[in-house]
Amino acid sequence: MTFHVYDTTLRDGAQQEGMNLSVADKLAIAPLLDELGVGFIEGGWPGAVPKDTEFFRRAAKELNLKNAVLAAFGATRKAGTRAVDDPQVRALVDSGAPVVALVAKSDIRHAERALRTTGEENLAMIADTVAFLVREGRRVVLDAEHFFDGYRFDAAYTRSAVLAALEAGAEVVALCDTNGGMIPDWVAEIVSELREHTGDGILGIHAHNDSGCAVANSLAAVGAGATHVQGTINGYGERTGNADLLTIVANLELKLGRELLADGGLREATRIAHAVSELTNITPYGRQPYVGASAFAHKAGLHASAIKVDPDLYQHIDPTLVGNDMRMLISDMAGRASIELKGRELGFDLAGQGDVLARVTNRVKDSEARGYTYDAADASFELLLREEIDGQLPTYFRIESWRTIVETRPEARGAENADDVVATAEATVKLHTGAERIVSTGEGNGPVNALDHALRQALVRVYPELEEFELIDFKVRILDQSHGTDAITRVLIETTDGNASWSTVGVGPNLIEAAWEALTSSTIYGLIHAGVAPR
Amino acid sequence: MTFHVYDTTLRDGAQQEGMNLSVADKLAIAPLLDELGVGFIEGGWPGAVPKDTEFFRRAAKELNLKNAVLAAFGATRKAGTRAVDDPQVRALVDSGAPVVALVAKSDIRHAERALRTTGEENLAMIADTVAFLVREGRRVVLDAEHFFDGYRFDAAYTRSAVLAALEAGAEVVALCDTNGGMIPDWVAEIVSELREHTGDGILGIHAHNDSGCAVANSLAAVGAGATHVQGTINGYGERTGNADLLTIVANLELKLGRELLADGGLREATRIAHAVSELTNITPYGRQPYVGASAFAHKAGLHASAIKVDPDLYQHIDPTLVGNDMRMLISDMAGRASIELKGRELGFDLAGQGDVLARVTNRVKDSEARGYTYDAADASFELLLREEIDGQLPTYFRIESWRTIVETRPEARGAENADDVVATAEATVKLHTGAERIVSTGEGNGPVNALDHALRQALVRVYPELEEFELIDFKVRILDQSHGTDAITRVLIETTDGNASWSTVGVGPNLIEAAWEALTSSTIYGLIHAGVAPR
Repeated sequence: MTFHVYDTTLRDGAQQEGMNLSVADKLAIAPLLDELGVGFIEGGWPGAVPKDTEFFRRAAKELNLKNAVLAAFGATRKAGTRAVDDPQVRALVDSGAPVVALVAKSDIRHAERALRTTGEENLAMIADTVAFLVREGRRVVLDAEHFFDGYRFDAAYTRSAVLAALEAGAEVVALCDTNGGMIPDWVAEIVSELREHTGDGILGIHAHNDSGCAVANSLAAVGAGATHVQGTINGYGERTGNADLLTIVANLELKLGRELLADGGLREATRIAHAVSELTNITPYGRQPYVGASAFAHKAGLHASAIKVDPDLYQHIDPTLVGNDMRMLISDMAGRASIELKGRELGFDLAGQGDVLARVTNRVKDSEARGYTYDAADASFELLLREEIDGQLPTYFRIESWRTIVETRPEARGAENADDVVATAEATVKLHTGAERIVSTGEGNGPVNALDHALRQALVRVYPELEEFELIDFKVRILDQSHGTDAITRVLIETTDGNASWSTVGVGPNLIEAAWEALTSSTIYGLIHAGVAPR
Repeated sequence: MTFHVYDTTLRDGAQQEGMNLSVADKLAIAPLLDELGVGFIEGGWPGAVPKDTEFFRRAAKELNLKNAVLAAFGATRKAGTRAVDDPQVRALVDSGAPVVALVAKSDIRHAERALRTTGEENLAMIADTVAFLVREGRRVVLDAEHFFDGYRFDAAYTRSAVLAALEAGAEVVALCDTNGGMIPDWVAEIVSELREHTGDGILGIHAHNDSGCAVANSLAAVGAGATHVQGTINGYGERTGNADLLTIVANLELKLGRELLADGGLREATRIAHAVSELTNITPYGRQPYVGASAFAHKAGLHASAIKVDPDLYQHIDPTLVGNDMRMLISDMAGRASIELKGRELGFDLAGQGDVLARVTNRVKDSEARGYTYDAADASFELLLREEIDGQLPTYFRIESWRTIVETRPEARGAENADDVVATAEATVKLHTGAERIVSTGEGNGPVNALDHALRQALVRVYPELEEFELIDFKVRILDQSHGTDAITRVLIETTDGNASWSTVGVGPNLIEAAWEALTSSTIYGLIHAGVAPR
């Protein structure tokens, strides 16, 4: 039986606070959605949004979709016009997209107050626009805006809007909980009732999460006969977001036994969800169901000992089914069982080494009390472990001193304000290796960047392995927000050597100092793993 | 009819990745939960967790709860012991908490494999421990761990565990979806079935969000007859979190007409949810239903024009019912309607000023393309607006130059590594006011802190109004994560003058430079609003 997985990440999802997708971004995200195996990719509103006109133009040439078809989104014709004469409608045809999604008022109050037209004319707008697009050879999805609110206000009118679309040739009518205020029982009841009137017409669900029930509302609609679900990757969208498409699909596939994504795409869900977040530049939400970094991360000491026995007792699914994995978190509540498991994860067998475990556990507790976190800094945790096991870390270098200077350029003196002045950053590092004393100065776009360059420049002659190292991520968190710039700063950095990548942490009242700690830790870790002995 | 709103933020919620609550933190959070109007506050596991023993000891003396009673959490007695002899159980009594929540295995596989005991002994453990605590005068909540998974595996056994607790005198049996894998239809069916056997016993629901359905599962259980809901503020908890208690309660009160929180506490939900996040030091989730900063924030140009007409057409509830409010966001998609509305929100009437609106809209678009965001920096947006309306901003000072130096202390030369060395930060600012040239040097814990001190010190003689200004929040975001420390940095700072507070933004490749921009903007904004003329 046909089931539509309809992705609107690039259109409704793009309303997300903080999201600003370029055409290039959209052209990069679409193939990921296709790889996931969705059936439809709603790309935007051509005509109304210039970037989207451009997207569809370039997509026709540059995208080679295997699983999905493109959908252009738009609206029903203006009141008192003909669809064929409405430039906004024509633009939808001109986009070339094989599917057109039309948003239409289905709530009489919206037709009358927002559009300032009559209920009758609104129905004609629906029928006319749908019929026109069908004649133009497009598959039409009618997005019945404010459907559920409208149905609860005036069921007969709202139903007539749905029927007008189906009778005019719409393939699907997607029922939109535009304000997000529905709860599952109401959705199930309404969709069941409606289905008694809609014959073979395909009904869809487009939910928002304002009541915290977007996923459940979508499942309820499917349970009542909907065979088309709309949603966004990572639940992006306005306000509380659209329904999270991956959560819905994972539930339908793994709980209800349906096969929805082409080629078992669900196994790529975690990777693709994260790849999309990189492109949208929206920080991933760690606690996201199925694909979040914390989704299968166990912390409580209570569970860690049980997980050693039987992973399935504590997980609702095998994480690999969605491309995720189990993570053990370090924390003071977890006790030795978790530390032992974490050590094993990193390749250290600590079974039976009670002494080491006790010391490591205590150091972790102390450090966390001072602001350190090892949850996101495995490499720093490993250095702590190695130091306790071996008694000390390899001494690749001894730092004598370092300093950074950030200043505005002297030629800008007298400028009206600092906005026109560019600041430069420079850092000097003085250190000793086994053989020599090195003084190195690095420049950069900022103080941490400059320190990074200075340190690497100082060491690369003695340790050429460092040539391949590159900083790829740098996060700053000001702890204890109530004290402004006097607060403790935690810096997490991620470094790569071209093959693997690792994360280290630094903490201190001074942001630069915290970054320095993370930088030196990262260098030491990288050299250890490159199998390098101190020179 | 009795309905229990049971808060486990301080116990199950504390398993949240990154949360480390001190006793003081818990003693500060509990009164907020009480103010919200929940009926029960589960404070921790006394005996097993030393901090929690301390919490209950101090709570007895220091907390003056008006609406809630405290609950101590623990486990059924060990296999093969008597409850009265089990120190872990005794500790629950010793805590003095009037309510004790006991976690018990209700899934035969967990009893046999995790506890390594028999199903029979497990039932005896339940009955014995419950009866003991009831004899000691405690109200008992039995948390049936893995209830739903257990019921689906062996319904008879799991039911017997529930009945054993009720027969021994438990007031409530809370059915726990410990792995979080349930979906609402399954919950409704199971709870309905179970209720046929449990007579007057109160059934509760304790859901986790692994399927993205924690709230909906809780609603489903209530629909099937549960009258006790457990959850956490802000959905804190392990993995994907516990059910968000405020979302459940808001849905039950506002959608289903129940009155659950004492004294209409729901109106304080947003304030309290944010206050709790300050104490837990977990960054609030902007898209959280009801109480999130974005929950009622409208962005799309499409809606902004309609909202002007009729706020209720686009919101599922009146935000003030949960203490939240409507926010207009600035973005390039929103168009002039949003900018006009935003201006009005800030006190500027731009109706009919097409020129200004066009210029502002263009500047906003350009800035956002370069990394600025005005969504969280109203004061910077207002400065932009004022600059376009008035042609320029007041010139309170002209910056000649600034510089920051961060360096390790010279007396630490030769230290084994930089961890033992403390870095100092100093900043020098040279500027002109109308009357004089001022050179000021400030010190601080870090470069931004030092600049903040240097700038204020430079200006406070001429503008004593600045004495009251204080930086209270400082956020750093590295944009374009793929470029390590070369990336663009965005800094947001929040300043207060003791009465109001405002946020400004700065952007640049150099973190210090970005912070400087936010600092000077904040100073200018503060002086404008203090009604000060340039001196």
